This record gives sequence, structure tokens and C-alpha cells, in this order.
Amino acid sequence: MHHKTIIEKISGVLEATDPTYDEKLTQMLDEASRIFVAGAGRSGLVARFFAMRLMHGGYDAYVVGEIVTPSIRKGDLFIVISGSGETETMIAFTKRAKEQGAKIALLSTKRSSTIGDMADFVCQIGTAEQYSKVVGMPMGTTFELSALIFLEATIAHIIHEKGIPEEEMRTRHANLE
Amino acid sequence: MHHKTIIEKISGVLEATDPTYDEKLTQMLDEASRIFVAGAGRSGLVARFFAMRLMHGGYDAYVVGEIVTPSIRKGDLFIVISGSGETETMIAFTKRAKEQGAKIALLSTKRSSTIGDMADFVCQIGTAEQYSKVVGMPMGTTFELSALIFLEATIAHIIHEKGIPEEEMRTRHANLE
Amino acid sequence: MHHKTIIEKISGVLEATDPTYDEKLTQMLDEASRIFVAGAGRSGLVARFFAMRLMHGGYDAYVVGEIVTPSIRKGDLFIVISGSGETETMIAFTKRAKEQGAKIALLSTKRSSTIGDMADFVCQIGTAEQYSKVVGMPMGTTFELSALIFLEATIAHIIHEKGIPEEEMRTRHANLE
Amino acid sequence: MHHKTIIEKISGVLEATDPTYDEKLTQMLDEASRIFVAGAGRSGLVARFFAMRLMHGGYDAYVVGEIVTPSIRKGDLFIVISGSGETETMIAFTKRAKEQGAKIALLSTKRSSTIGDMADFVCQIGTAEQYSKVVGMPMGTTFELSALIFLEATIAHIIHEKGIPEEEMRTRHANLE
Repeated sequence: MHHKTIIEKISGVLEATDPTYDEKLTQMLDEASRIFVAGAGRSGLVARFFAMRLMHGGYDAYVVGEIVTPSIRKGDLFIVISGSGETETMIAFTKRAKEQGAKIALLSTKRSSTIGDMADFVCQIGTAEQYSKVVGMPMGTTFELSALIFLEATIAHIIHEKGIPEEEMRTRHANLE
Repeated sequence: MHHKTIIEKISGVLEATDPTYDEKLTQMLDEASRIFVAGAGRSGLVARFFAMRLMHGGYDAYVVGEIVTPSIRKGDLFIVISGSGETETMIAFTKRAKEQGAKIALLSTKRSSTIGDMADFVCQIGTAEQYSKVVGMPMGTTFELSALIFLEATIAHIIHEKGIPEEEMRTRHANLE
Repeated sequence: MHHKTIIEKISGVLEATDPTYDEKLTQMLDEASRIFVAGAGRSGLVARFFAMRLMHGGYDAYVVGEIVTPSIRKGDLFIVISGSGETETMIAFTKRAKEQGAKIALLSTKRSSTIGDMADFVCQIGTAEQYSKVVGMPMGTTFELSALIFLEATIAHIIHEKGIPEEEMRTRHANLE
Repeated sequence: MHHKTIIEKISGVLEATDPTYDEKLTQMLDEASRIFVAGAGRSGLVARFFAMRLMHGGYDAYVVGEIVTPSIRKGDLFIVISGSGETETMIAFTKRAKEQGAKIALLSTKRSSTIGDMADFVCQIGTAEQYSKVVGMPMGTTFELSALIFLEATIAHIIHEKGIPEEEMRTRHANLE
């Protein structure tokens, strides 16, 4: 049963993740004027999952690369999802966001990396050791799924803390899709 | 020289288009709280070209199908690009947008169609006869390119009328791309 | 700890899912000439996660709505992800895919639905009862995450069964991103 | 009448473009195993317009950044659309594509640029002087629209030369959209 192996792996990674991270990230979200999220490939899909829920929750959120995404500036938050912290396009975006005075948060498998060393907050998901032992799951799967569940848990935290009614989120959800 | 043929074709189509349309569309844009644009396939690309310039111009614009696009409601404008006015998904979206109380504008080759008959404003680009004589350009090319130039001209009209400085548009343009 | 609640929920849903489904889906994938995946909103993101891994695994896979996605025809497989089985655009696509002679597979929370009743195979993820009791997770979250893990497990199943080396998958992975 | 100004501008730019370019580009397309197209922002939309028609014409074409786009390798062609030839992400992609042994073609306003100097073929659309005198059209509009019409003309050239029936293109066009 492959799903059990996957779930055990994600569960282990999230157990090894600092339990105060969702609060720290929530605080950064609440202090930001607008939120920009980005990631390459499947990490970009994780970013999109998160951005949609932020919009549902009433945040002013954008996905880097979409057509109506405006320029980032001082007061905004840039959230990057990059397992290695070394994705070339994400390094370039982080530099530019930082130059504009935006705050930077990184979700990564590592504490230190090119992007991590520029970030205001590194959300290290699990430990480097945990990723070295993954068998039977291709490439970045463990990180991507763990980062996704971590961000869903952050949304659950926000909803609970602020008492956002599900009905309110539903009202914001796209009715043309 | 194929480009001459294409340009002549587009030019003819736009000459046959009601010259008051850009003003009418501008008025609808200015009366709307938010603007949603949609189209299938290459018409969807035309919609995206337009949405980006609307954002640059300071309008609150969304592309249907993007991740952070919220729900449409009363007071919003829904702009559909559909050569035939009969694209199935666009019919469904138009119905729903109308039910919510949004205004509807259609860019099309026809005055009357399933979407056109639900719309508050049909922007007929050229005449049906002009599309029947196109040779050597595949499928909807003439309509798509003409609709694109028409919308670019509308943007030029808006910029001129409101005196929006190019610098202001540039400031809004995505700096992470 | 919100992530525990989420993981327990997904785990319960997947335990209640027929353990032979991944084999059945693998068989359909292997019998298809080409594979088309689709979903609206966040279900569309789940579809994209799966499509990328199918491409890595050597399958000829397409996401409905992307620019170079060709027409579907007899011999192809259309995989729809829809919690309700009632998403309007997905109903329209399923009808058209079926008319062309494509096989249909649906991932859903229900055994019977408008799409389900047209499908050759309904992959019911969990039971209807399980979704009625979800507290603190907005909207379709439980289904979306469970469907995602189910599809990741299917990929793990395929990799294991066919002995696809990770190096081979990595070679196919986009090097421009 | 703004559309006349736009059309005159594009027309002038294309008149000043080397008339042998569409043949050269066609030859590169025909020699390539697979074709990858890319551009940032609105240039990315131009790339998408072209990619869809290439697919319709029977070419194996991909848009960089879409989910099922595989890795580029020796024998492939990478077409970049960049007015300045200096877009940072496009420079990074061009370097990597070149390292893999892919051929590079650039559509640009300049003969020489960081990307242009790495390219096997620079398709200079118009002259630098023409872009310096544009009034009333925001930002890269003239280049984007001229590049689009140039590529549509290239498609018309290919269709005419190879005698591809429109019916054949229509058959390949997405029937789920």
C-alpha cells in the first residue's frame, strides 16, 4: 500500500518541523500589504494551492507569473517554495523582491541556501537527513507534499484563530470555473 | 509577403467596425467595480493581453481561470471574447455571470449568438461577410488578431483620454517575471 | 497541531478507498494512446501534479486548457478530478471526450454523479460519510489532498512495477523552469 | 482612430524587417526535433499564440513553463521572444538550452544583446529607431504586436509552402476548451 508509505513519510517530516512556524508565517502574512507566492514546477503548484486559500481568506494574494500580477514593492511579502533554495529563477526573483524592500519567506528542506540566506524567515520543512532516505518516491515528492500540508495547516490555523466562517470563504471562491 | 495580406485583412475588418465601440467599452470599464475577461484557446490569449494592460492602467482586472481570480458579482463587468459567440464553456460562464448581476460585453464576429443575446453590449468586430472570404490564414486568425488590435486601440483611447502617464503604467508592471 | 488533523483525515479517507484502484487506473493508463487530465480550481492543480509525473514516467500526457494540448480522440484516456462529479465545465468536456470515443476515468467523492455515470471507471476516494464530518478544513480540502496522495501512490505503484529508474524520470524533467 | 495608428506602426516595422526571415525560421523549425518557445509577460503570450499554431501544423511544440513540457536537448530548437534581448529569466533559459546543445532563435528589437549574442539566429523585427519614436502606445506594444504578426505570417508561409489543409489543422485543435 503505497499511500501509507507516503503518509508516514510526510507525517515524519512535519513532526520534525518547528511547531511555531505556522504562527510566525501567519504573523508575516498579517503584517504584509500584499502577498506574492512563487515556485518552479511542482513547487509552483504548491504555491498556487496556498494562494487560492489566501484569497478565500481575504488576503490580497498573487501568484508570480500570472497575467494580472502587479509589481512587488516595500510592505509586500514574497513567499518562495524551493526544496533546494537554489532554483535559479527563484534566486533572481528573491533578489529583485528584496531590492524593492519586500519581506522574504522561504519554504525549503535546508536552513541555509542562496535564497535562504537572503530571506527574513526560512521555514525549514523537516530535516536534511529525512530527505536523504526516501525510497520509491520520485524526486522532490516528499518536500512538495510536506510543504503543501504545512501550508494547508497554516490556513487551518488562520481560519481557527480569526474565526473566518467557511461561508465567507465560499463567497469569495471563483464562480466562473 | 504574407504579413501584408494579414495587415490588410485586419485593417479592413477594423474599418468596418463601429468607430464608437471603444468609447462604449471604455464607459462600461469605468462603471464596473471589477473586470473579468475570458476566452477559450487563442481568444483566451487575446483576453490576457487586454487584462494585463487594464491592470497597468489601474483597473481591477482578472482573467477567468487564474488561481487568485475571485467570484464575480453585481457591479462587475464580464468581457467574453468568442468569434462564434457559441463557445460552450463561455456560454456557461456568461449565464452564471448574468445570474450574479454582472454586466456582459462580448467581442464577436456576429451581432446575434447565444452569448450575444445575453450580453449588454456586443462589440461586433468587422462583418460576417469579411470572415467568409479569408484565404490562407488558419481558423479564427483574422478575428483573433482584429479583436486584439481593437482592444489595444481601446487601451490607447483610455490612456489618451485620462492622460495616464506611461511611467505610472510601468510602475505597476510585474517586476518578477 | 493542525497538520496532524489533516494527515489523520487523509489517512482515514485513503484507508476507506478500494485498494485495487491504483492497479485499475494503471491498466487504463497503459492501454491509452495518450492521457488527458482535467479539473477545475484546486482539482485542476491536482491534475497538473499528476500530469507532470506521468510525463516523467514516459507517458504521453496533457493538461486540458494548456496551449499545446491537442484534440482528444478514440484510444485516449480522459481523467477528470471532480469532488462532486457535477462541475459544469467538466461535464461538458466529459461528454465531448466520450463522443470522440475516449475512455473516461473520474476521481470523485461519490460513486454516482453526472460525470460518474458517463465514466468507464469511477475512482471513489473515501466515502460520502467521511466528507460530511470534516471540521476546520475549508471546502474541498480533504478530497483534493486525498486525491493527490492517491495519484502519487499510483505513480509510486507504476514506478515500482515497471522498475522505472529515478534517473530516467529526472532526465525528462523540465530543465528550463 | 487609434487602430489606424497601431496598424501603420506595425506595418512600418514589418516593412523594415528582412523579408527572408520567415524562410530562415521555417528552415530551423523543420530541422528541429522539437520546438520550445518562451517569453516573459506579454511576449510569453506571443510565444503561446505561435506554439498553438505550430501544434496545429503538426510540429512537436512546447511552451516553457507549462506542466508537461519536457527537458530540452540536442536537436531541439529554443525560440525566445524578448524585445530587449536582456530579460533575466530568458537569459538563464537560453544559457541552459545552449549547454544542452539546442539551437537558439531570438525575436528582438535589436541585433545584438545578451541573448542575441548566444543565438544561432536573431530575427530583428524592425529597427531600433522605429521603437524610439512610438507615442501613445504603452511599453513594448509595438514590438509584441509586430512579433505576433511576423509569426502569424511565418505560419501562413509554412501552410502555403507545405500545402497543409485547414481541415488537418482543425482536426488537431483542442476539442476540450
